[in-house]
Amino acid sequence: MDALKASSIALRQNVKFVFEGEEEAGSPHLGEILRRYQDLLPADVWLICDGPVHQSRRQQIIFGARGITTLDITVYGPIHELHSGHYGNFAPNPAMMLTRLLASMKDDDGRVLIPHFYDSIEPLSESEKRAVAEVPDIDRTLLEEFQVGRSEGGGKKLVELLNEPSLNIRGMSSARTGAGASNVIPSTAIASIDIRLVKDITTEMAAKRVIDHIRKQGYYIVETDPDRDTRLSHPKVAKVVQLPGGYNASHTSMDLPISQLVLKTAEAARGPVVRLPTMGGSVPLCVIEEILHSPTITVPIANHDNNQHSYNENIRIRNLWDGMELMAALLAM
Amino acid sequence: MDALKASSIALRQNVKFVFEGEEEAGSPHLGEILRRYQDLLPADVWLICDGPVHQSRRQQIIFGARGITTLDITVYGPIHELHSGHYGNFAPNPAMMLTRLLASMKDDDGRVLIPHFYDSIEPLSESEKRAVAEVPDIDRTLLEEFQVGRSEGGGKKLVELLNEPSLNIRGMSSARTGAGASNVIPSTAIASIDIRLVKDITTEMAAKRVIDHIRKQGYYIVETDPDRDTRLSHPKVAKVVQLPGGYNASHTSMDLPISQLVLKTAEAARGPVVRLPTMGGSVPLCVIEEILHSPTITVPIANHDNNQHSYNENIRIRNLWDGMELMAALLAM
Repeated sequence: MDALKASSIALRQNVKFVFEGEEEAGSPHLGEILRRYQDLLPADVWLICDGPVHQSRRQQIIFGARGITTLDITVYGPIHELHSGHYGNFAPNPAMMLTRLLASMKDDDGRVLIPHFYDSIEPLSESEKRAVAEVPDIDRTLLEEFQVGRSEGGGKKLVELLNEPSLNIRGMSSARTGAGASNVIPSTAIASIDIRLVKDITTEMAAKRVIDHIRKQGYYIVETDPDRDTRLSHPKVAKVVQLPGGYNASHTSMDLPISQLVLKTAEAARGPVVRLPTMGGSVPLCVIEEILHSPTITVPIANHDNNQHSYNENIRIRNLWDGMELMAALLAM
Repeated sequence: MDALKASSIALRQNVKFVFEGEEEAGSPHLGEILRRYQDLLPADVWLICDGPVHQSRRQQIIFGARGITTLDITVYGPIHELHSGHYGNFAPNPAMMLTRLLASMKDDDGRVLIPHFYDSIEPLSESEKRAVAEVPDIDRTLLEEFQVGRSEGGGKKLVELLNEPSLNIRGMSSARTGAGASNVIPSTAIASIDIRLVKDITTEMAAKRVIDHIRKQGYYIVETDPDRDTRLSHPKVAKVVQLPGGYNASHTSMDLPISQLVLKTAEAARGPVVRLPTMGGSVPLCVIEEILHSPTITVPIANHDNNQHSYNENIRIRNLWDGMELMAALLAM
């Protein structure tokens, strides 16, 4: 904005800024705020700055985001840890039970085995298929960057896989490992999984599919720690808690006039762009679409190798400068 | 000893006391000390005070111990954690790989599926079979004490299962769970397993069987963290480290005259005793047997519900008094 003013470039649209500071906490108040100020906020388009540019470092324009829901799964062994010598072979080990349960959810190639998991996925439009086909292929480079010898997905490209729902173990723990380990049968084993959703699969549908699958593996499902009677009367008990803060996928057509205008403007400022029907990550754009009925388009700035959600998060300075150019063009479009 | 002296009860044998303070650390110096003082230490019998009395609170006399070896298994995903939205479905998740690997090791009933795992187990003698058959059945009570709805082992009793080798996940971890969890594909996943051994299965044999099995699941095995080339040139890499401090099983015949004398003396002091061919836990008795060629018999004092190896370890006062009676009788036998 300062640069536009300094260069005497006039805006041709009304521009409003919305800063959401709770996104990493699941945006618990976004819906409430949008509803309260909905008369002020409708727009021809919401431009969203979250997410990364393409791994090739080319500008990326994204027309949707996967939804997300997160489940914490706890399975139960003995009420307290047992000596693994005196009771190994006899008392059920919850860590082993959990491995069997989680292993039943995906095949060796990463395909989710939970019944109906891939049901009701909206197919890509012709423009979207063309856009996906034109995305630079960086899969080989990424595997080298990640230092892994294979990808999952049965030979599909990353950009194709982002258009499918995913199921990921984001954390797993039982008793202790490393220097703190001791010879016990653990008392509980915990996995936290995140499920990424595509359009038309809601958080409720996805959670229900997973929970139905756990039940089919012989588990009695509880939502709080089971009492003595519950533990004793069921061979397998799992606590499944769907964490708050999930939301559904969002989707804007690439064929809308506003979509075409954003693409044209971005390309004029930054050269050929990568067009994605959806990003793999999740941002609560569906809340904006549902309450304000405005389309959203994501125009990201950050570098892909920014270690988001982990140690040593970072921003590449070049991406900041590129982002200023992009934003100036879009604000003045 | 003080009580025997105060009561003017004379010892009829030479008695020597050996205190081992490193047992929970794998007794790294026991062999060296026994070798250095082997002229001083041979005996008609070594009486071992470790381990618990029977869960029925009856005195238990035990004629062996399972051996133990411990393996730490690490499987590798991306070199650093990745955003689970942007790369979920594409980058291999080491937690999911580990669950598949561990689940391949045991069936739902706790039976180990690793080839040859149960090979070369020495069958029980007639006396041992009789002793096992006479052990009070406390399995139902234990399940209630542990608050679990089933036992493993295909209907076999605990006391039978202790005579078989076991494989136990003693700890498991990948990224973070609970409040610290975040939406990542973890970089590594770790499991620590302990394997309990019976006579004639050595630590080396057991470790080799597990490692061969991991290799058969498609893993390239390393002993230190893999370098970039190793990671890139193998679809699956596992680090397997056999921890120091393991040892083989030990076994003393119940039919030896000294065994019969210990049993008779214990029963005279404490009433009918439970006789076990082996305890489930591990103590390095094989070191004593191999170096000094003396038989070992375990005459435990502690209560079974002492939370050994876990939180709130405890000793029941009654067991201390019972133990004094037992020891006085054995020292004066």
